[in-house]
Order: sequence, then structure tokens, then C-alpha cells
Amino acid sequence: MTKRRILGIDPGSRLTGFGVIDFDGGKAVYIASGTVKSVEGAFADRLRQIFDSIGNIVDEFRPDIVSIESVFMHKNAGSALKLGHARSAAICATFKHGTEVFEYAPREIKQAVVGTGAATKEQVQHMVVSILSLDGSPAPDAADALAAALCHGHQRRLNAQLGTGKAIAGAQ
Amino acid sequence: MTKRRILGIDPGSRLTGFGVIDFDGGKAVYIASGTVKSVEGAFADRLRQIFDSIGNIVDEFRPDIVSIESVFMHKNAGSALKLGHARSAAICATFKHGTEVFEYAPREIKQAVVGTGAATKEQVQHMVVSILSLDGSPAPDAADALAAALCHGHQRRLNAQLGTGKAIAGAQ
Repeated sequence: MTKRRILGIDPGSRLTGFGVIDFDGGKAVYIASGTVKSVEGAFADRLRQIFDSIGNIVDEFRPDIVSIESVFMHKNAGSALKLGHARSAAICATFKHGTEVFEYAPREIKQAVVGTGAATKEQVQHMVVSILSLDGSPAPDAADALAAALCHGHQRRLNAQLGTGKAIAGAQ
Repeated sequence: MTKRRILGIDPGSRLTGFGVIDFDGGKAVYIASGTVKSVEGAFADRLRQIFDSIGNIVDEFRPDIVSIESVFMHKNAGSALKLGHARSAAICATFKHGTEVFEYAPREIKQAVVGTGAATKEQVQHMVVSILSLDGSPAPDAADALAAALCHGHQRRLNAQLGTGKAIAGAQ
């Protein structure tokens, strides 16, 4: 397998986590992670903050792949509407360089990182630190974004072993 | 008042209506309208179709202002999530030229176009055709987008008369 750079995104209407990982063969190498805030101004301003910030991250790190947690259900219609806007702003910001977008269910990400789809948030964060040999714990949203990126790499390894290469949600 | 070009958008997860109107003083002049389809492929592909199509419309018509119906509540969380994604993709596509985004409540749009916030969809469409002296009826989503654009112009006239200029949701 050739080296691929993966941008994981954990979207939210106020905080969007991101994590960049290089996969070179079976090895995952931490590149960067952090959190984008979008708390000030009118709603359209906040979408612009997410769109511009993720756009800058894409320009800087030039990922080959974007990996993001899928969302199918939500308890509350109001917060679903806000999350949908924020998540879409982050996804659309990655389109400019033709990056492919893959979506993974929360249980797939937990399974890939911890080994069980029923893992807690703390277990996921602990394993992200361990797998990437990080010195300290990243912010929770950044850790979740790194987990999404790790999940894509894990999935690719499995696909390579199985001789398959299923694109779950190729954006191109 | 100087001439301003307004792009009205009526977002949807499968069909997004658009309408372009020039306001020169008190006069509204029809420029273009239509519907963007986003029905094929994975969800990220459909967002890309909306983002690219509205981006092309913005490149072609170079609006000064974007006017879009506000959404605060939704009955169903699943469809709210889809609408949020689609609406955000359309809004984010207008950011590249620094266009200002204004949001209006459905009742404000009906009030501006028909004269009553309780107007039916058919009444709105009828008045859009009448105000803009159109030869035929535009598609329903295109008519709603033109109504959003007309609402912004109407609001600007009122603001000018009152000596105010309230930006409801300036994106810049």
C-alpha cells in the first residue's frame, strides 16, 4: 500500500475536531490535530468559520482522504438541523482539492480503534493516544477525529487483506 | 438605492431552487431561476452536487446578496439532518465571493410577497409571477427561491423608508 494522508473530522455546531494521520503500509503516524471553534456571530457566520477553518487545514495538510463519522439518527430535530449544517460545512470545505469522503458508523470507529463497537468515549481516547504514541491526550473532539482517521486506515488494511476496496461514500 | 443583485435559495436535500433578481431602486427585475437536482450517488456526492451547482450559479450571476428562508424547527430529526446538510452546502457555496447571507422566516417571505404571513404556497407562486411579470410559472422550488429574493428587496425598501438597515444574518 502506498502512503496515504487521512483527515478525520468530528463535526459539531460549536466545536469541530480534526486529526491528520499518515498511513504508510500498516503504520499510522500522527501529523496534527486540534479543534475549530464556531461560537460567535450569526448562524451563517458560524458556518463560514467552520468552512474557512477546515478549508485552511485542507490547504495546509492536503489529505488524500477525509474520514467522518456517519449520522443517521438524532433525538432532537433542532440539534439535528444545527449538526447537519455544521457537518456539511466541514465536508464541503474538503471538496476543493477533490478529496474523497468516507463515512463510518460510530460502532465501526469504536470497533476499529478499541476492538469493540460498545467502547466508551474514554476507551477510544485512551487507544488513540496509545496507537499514535502521543505524549498527552488531545482534546476530546480532536481525539474523536483522530479515531475516525484511524478507522479508515484500519478499514483499508482489512480491505487489502481481503482483496477488496469498498468505498463507503466516495465523494468523487 | 443602488442596483443590487439578489440570489434567493430554496434548499432541499433532493431539489434546491434558485432565483436571481436585480433590484434597481424600488423595481424588481427577473434575471434567472431554476432547480438544482441532487438525487444520485452517496450522500457526500449529493452535497457536492449542490455545492458545485450553486457555486457555478454564483460564479455566473455574481449576486451581492443571498436571501434564504430560515429554518428553526423541524418535525422529524432525520429529515432535519438531511435538510441541514443540503442547506449548508448551498450557503457555503456562496462564501467564495464574500456574498452577504440574509435569512428570513417563512412568514416574513409570505408577508413581503403576498401581504399576509398566512399565504398559501400557491398564492406565493402566483404573486411571484405577477410581481416579476413572468410569462409562465417557474417550478415550485424556483418560485420559492424568487420569493426569498423578493423578500430581501422588500425588506430593504422598508429599511430605507425607515432609515434603518438591519442585517438579519450578515455572513461577513
